[in-house]
Parts: sequence; C-alpha cells; structure tokens
Amino acid sequence: MRIEGKISPRRLLESFSAGEKAPLFRFSTPQISDALYKISGYNGAIHSLRPLNKKKIFGPIVTAKTKDYDWGTSVKAIDHASESEVIFIMAEGDDNAVWGELTSKTAKKKKIAGTIIYGACRDLDAISKLDFPVFSKGVVPNAGKPLALGEVNIELECEGVDVRPGDYVFGDESGVVIVPQELLDIVMEEAFRIKEREADISRLIEDGIPLSRILGLK
Amino acid sequence: MRIEGKISPRRLLESFSAGEKAPLFRFSTPQISDALYKISGYNGAIHSLRPLNKKKIFGPIVTAKTKDYDWGTSVKAIDHASESEVIFIMAEGDDNAVWGELTSKTAKKKKIAGTIIYGACRDLDAISKLDFPVFSKGVVPNAGKPLALGEVNIELECEGVDVRPGDYVFGDESGVVIVPQELLDIVMEEAFRIKEREADISRLIEDGIPLSRILGLK
Amino acid sequence: MRIEGKISPRRLLESFSAGEKAPLFRFSTPQISDALYKISGYNGAIHSLRPLNKKKIFGPIVTAKTKDYDWGTSVKAIDHASESEVIFIMAEGDDNAVWGELTSKTAKKKKIAGTIIYGACRDLDAISKLDFPVFSKGVVPNAGKPLALGEVNIELECEGVDVRPGDYVFGDESGVVIVPQELLDIVMEEAFRIKEREADISRLIEDGIPLSRILGLK
Repeated sequence: MRIEGKISPRRLLESFSAGEKAPLFRFSTPQISDALYKISGYNGAIHSLRPLNKKKIFGPIVTAKTKDYDWGTSVKAIDHASESEVIFIMAEGDDNAVWGELTSKTAKKKKIAGTIIYGACRDLDAISKLDFPVFSKGVVPNAGKPLALGEVNIELECEGVDVRPGDYVFGDESGVVIVPQELLDIVMEEAFRIKEREADISRLIEDGIPLSRILGLK
Repeated sequence: MRIEGKISPRRLLESFSAGEKAPLFRFSTPQISDALYKISGYNGAIHSLRPLNKKKIFGPIVTAKTKDYDWGTSVKAIDHASESEVIFIMAEGDDNAVWGELTSKTAKKKKIAGTIIYGACRDLDAISKLDFPVFSKGVVPNAGKPLALGEVNIELECEGVDVRPGDYVFGDESGVVIVPQELLDIVMEEAFRIKEREADISRLIEDGIPLSRILGLK
Repeated sequence: MRIEGKISPRRLLESFSAGEKAPLFRFSTPQISDALYKISGYNGAIHSLRPLNKKKIFGPIVTAKTKDYDWGTSVKAIDHASESEVIFIMAEGDDNAVWGELTSKTAKKKKIAGTIIYGACRDLDAISKLDFPVFSKGVVPNAGKPLALGEVNIELECEGVDVRPGDYVFGDESGVVIVPQELLDIVMEEAFRIKEREADISRLIEDGIPLSRILGLK
C-alpha cells in the first residue's frame, strides 16, 4: 500500500529521462532537499529565489552569467538550451532585469522547461499569463541592453551552492534546490523512500497518533 | 444603528472564551493594534511576520524556542498545545525550516488554531491547500532534524514585543499583533468601540464628507 | 497591421488628457521605462515599491511628505488631489502605516486614481476588496495619529528618482516608473513604437525565429 507503488524508482528515473514529467512533479523541494541532505550532508537550497508565477520547475541546467545591464546573454542562453532543460542565469547585480516577456515566449516556444534568474525579472503581468515557470530574486520594471557579452554554460556558485551545467534543479513554492548530476539517481531513490515514509506518517496523523510518538521523540 | 449592535462587548468576550470564533475574526489587526495602543501606548506589532496562506489567526499562545536546525521542538510544542490555541515558535536563525506539512497536519488534527513561526517554514504547496493558518518570517525548502532540544512555554521577546504563554495573538494580511492576556478584555472593548467608530466614519465617507472634516483636521 | 493601429500616438495622448484610461493601461511599466531610458538615459524606476492588490496605476502625481507616525498628512493629500490624480506619499520611516482602509475609501469616493506609499500601508484585507490601486514598500498593522503636520505638493526624491507634483507615474506588477511631465508626450510616442516593435518580435517568435536572430545578436 505505497503511494507511487506502481512505479519503481528505476522506472521513475527512466520516465524522467524520457521526458515524462508528471511523476517528478509530484515531489516537493523539501523532499528533494531532505534526500540530498541524507546522502551528502548538504541541502542544495538557494534561499533568495522565489517563484514568480507559482509554477513548479525541474530539469537539467544550462547556465549563463551576465552583468545585470546585459540581457542579451539571456537570449544567448536560450540558443544553447534544449527542450526540457532549465536556464539558470546569474546576474551580477539586480538593478536591471535580465529576463522578461520576449525571452519567456522564445524559451517557451523552444519547449525549454523554465528559467531561474539569480537577479531581477520584469513583465510579471505577461509572465503570469504564460504557462512557463520563472523564478527570480527580484522584480524591476527596467532593463539594460541585449549586448550578449556574458558567458554561457560555465560553473556558477550561488549562496555557497555549486550550480554546474547538467546539474538538476527543482523549484516550487518552498524554493529552489540544486542536485549535482552525479547524485541524481540516488537522490531520486531516497526522495522516493522519503515520500513513502511521509505518506505513512500522514496516515498515522490522520488516525490521531501524535507526531512526537510516530517519530519516537521523548 | 451600530454594527455588531446585537452583541455587547461583554458577550463578545464570552463568545470568544467559549470558542465561538466568528465575531473576533471580524476584527482586523489594525483595529486590535489601535485599541492596544490607546490603552497601553504600545502597538504590539511584530513586523516581519507574514501570512503564508492568507488565513486569519487568533487565540491564546503556546510558545516554543528552538535552534533552526531542530524542528523536533515544534513537534513538542504541538503536544503542549490545546484546541483553539496558537503555537508561536521562535527559531534562532532562519536557515532551516522548523515547520511544514506534517506538523501542520498534526496541529490541524488536534484542532490547534494555527502556527506562527518567527523563522522559516516549508511545504508551502501543501500548506496552501490545508485549512490551517500559518505565518512566518521566511520560506526555505530545507530543514534540520527532529531533535526536540528546545524549550516550550517560556517567555519570548520578538522585535521588542513580549510574547508570553497565554498572551493573545491576532494575525491577518496586515501582520501580527500580540495582546498581553491581562489586557485582553479592555482591548476587545476598545477594539469594539474603534470598529463602531470606523463604521460611522465609513458611512460619512460614503455620503461624500471629506475624511479631513470628519476627523476635524484643519 | 499594427496593434493599436487605429489610435495615433497623438490621439493616444489626447485620450489620456481626456481621462480615457483604457489605452494607457495597455502599456506596461517595462515599455514606459524603456521609452524613458531611450529618451533620457534614465529609467525612472523606484525598486522597492510593490502593488498590494495587483491593480495597475497611472496618472499625474500629487505628493506628500510625512513622518510615519502621522497619517493625517495622507488625509490632507486627499484634499489636495483631484479626480484621476495619483497620491504619492513619502513617509520618513516605515514603522507605522500612513495609509489604510478609510483613506482608500475616501480617495476612491473622490475618484482619485490610486495611492503609492513610499512607506507602510495597512488594512490589506479591506484594500484587496476595494477597486482602488495601492502600492507600498511595506505592510504593518499599526499606525500613528492623524496629525497632518507634513507637507503636500512638494518635490521629492526616492531612490535617486525625482518625484515632482504633476509628474506622471505608471505602476503594475513589475513595479513603478516616474515620467517627468515635460517628457510625457515623447515618452508615450516612444512607448508606442516600442509596443509595436515588441508585437512584431512576438509574431516572429511565434513563427519560430530565434530571438537572437531577430535582434541580430552574433
């Protein structure tokens, strides 16, 4: 009587590789973070990123690094990203937006999975109507120019968390977690066990057993 | 022709003690804060707390104090709280969440009135679907461990506001206000007068009288 | 085949002066900011202001400057404002709210276009139900007194942006932009061209042309 019982962790990972998103979207960032922490002693969370349109995001990362007055690097990153990948842009500064409506439309048209801006975004009215997940640190109405002078697909570090091309990102209303690509399989298996255990605990709570007793706290 | 005219302040307080929540929920935190200020010269507001799921909260407080890497103290606080009480958790730090889905479900099952975390919360997706009010300073996806090493039902101080077990908390979209238990009756009576006066003023505004004239400002 | 094709920029400005709001509301703050930047090298954005009830705002500004413990100056500003104008209040500090339900109702009754508080607001529950746009830096439940000791219709400076009586403000979910009154006509004409160009680009994106090629980025 396990939830997700018909899908083995192995099958789950295969379905992930095959681009079937549904099962993975049923995991929360807390479950992913807990799994990563159990395996690596490291929680992978970047705290100042917030969802702008309440959509969940996940996928392998394409990175970009840019000055905040150059949104052309974000356009360059779209060219480098493939279907189902997530663009992760690190802007040095957040006085100018490096992402907005036109970049969102282009990325969505290319079936990119979403964009995370460690910096500022704009065009929230338009983005909230698009079915395209966007996360950012801040929101401002102004932008710089499409210079495209930044770098694409380099290793980044955000609030002490390594963000490398090909690493996996998971985002929802609780925030954003980065999972190193070499740990993805075992993190997903662990997350699956955590999800099962939480479902068991939820059933016990529903039966009226105190959580302290379920957890064996004195 | 008073609003709430059929309910005397005394009756209001009795209905409050009896657990009839409706009338109290019709007060706003600004009205409570104004009443407290008029009586004590002190507004009772803790500014950095925000509602996570837009639900109003009120009730007598059960306190807890914990390191942010120990969410077990929050579980312990649930054991100490009774129906209609509000759990107020002070976390030292907000790098880790000390409240989430399982604790919310447990507290809701026990008919606790809600939880306020002076620290970080997680599982927002789940919490936004639960009919259980949660307020916090921040939101992060990661948590520590259920150590339960913190203290329960001790006196706290938050942003200069005393928060003692048995004090009353009121929260809505404008924020959170703490009312010392010994002042509750007269604060409620004063809030009732404020609410009546505001209803009178609203009617005059609706009739087109300038607020400056209503207030007697030059 | 231009959007807004039936309305010339000149007609647009006339309709604006005539109080017909609809066409202007179709501009976004990013378009206005881009237009202002192109003309003046200056983007006009005030970054810490957020919409409290997701409504767009625009109009000529009436200013007020007050200590945060004096919300009477906000009431005085309502007396000085006319239909379709926007009240812009600079509060020194944001420990107390200088705007709330009663001031919103009074301003709405007078057909004022909205209020922007560089400071704190309260009564969010009530304001979210009113059809009256409010922007602010912060939200707190407590307020000071209606002293009315501040100044009305003076020149302000917010985060390096001049805010003078009669200047125009535009606000939406991306933030707030101030346009100097003497530049309004050419900013609107430029915004019109930007909007047309963006519509052209959106059509090309929809046809599958990469944004990098549309923009001529290498």
